[in-house]
Amino acid sequence: MGSETRQIIVGMAEFYEPDYFLNKELVILANLEPKKFMGIKSQGMILAVDVEGKPIFLIPEKEVPPGSIIK
Amino acid sequence: MGSETRQIIVGMAEFYEPDYFLNKELVILANLEPKKFMGIKSQGMILAVDVEGKPIFLIPEKEVPPGSIIK
Repeated sequence: MGSETRQIIVGMAEFYEPDYFLNKELVILANLEPKKFMGIKSQGMILAVDVEGKPIFLIPEKEVPPGSIIK
Repeated sequence: MGSETRQIIVGMAEFYEPDYFLNKELVILANLEPKKFMGIKSQGMILAVDVEGKPIFLIPEKEVPPGSIIK
């Protein structure tokens, strides 16, 4: 997230392989309390459109600098 | 917004022509109080990445049904 690295836990194994997230610009809710899932700390949430239970990710229409702010 | 029509006022004339918004899937904050700008009611806000003052819109990575919910 910009120059900062965050660990985020997602429950999406049934929809996406881990590689799917490489080099992708995603939208993160970053101002949340860290939460633990199965003992592993998660430091944010990824925003996605819910289409019949499957998450479709939100991406910027054009490439933006990592860490840019949503308004 | 799905089967519902909303009027949203944006101050983006310096960045985008009105046609730019046609047939585009955008992300709307819809659970806000309507607000009036110059006497015209605005019924939501469009989410965008702020890149040095210019809004870059968020879009779903794949086409989704209009009115789908973000989670």
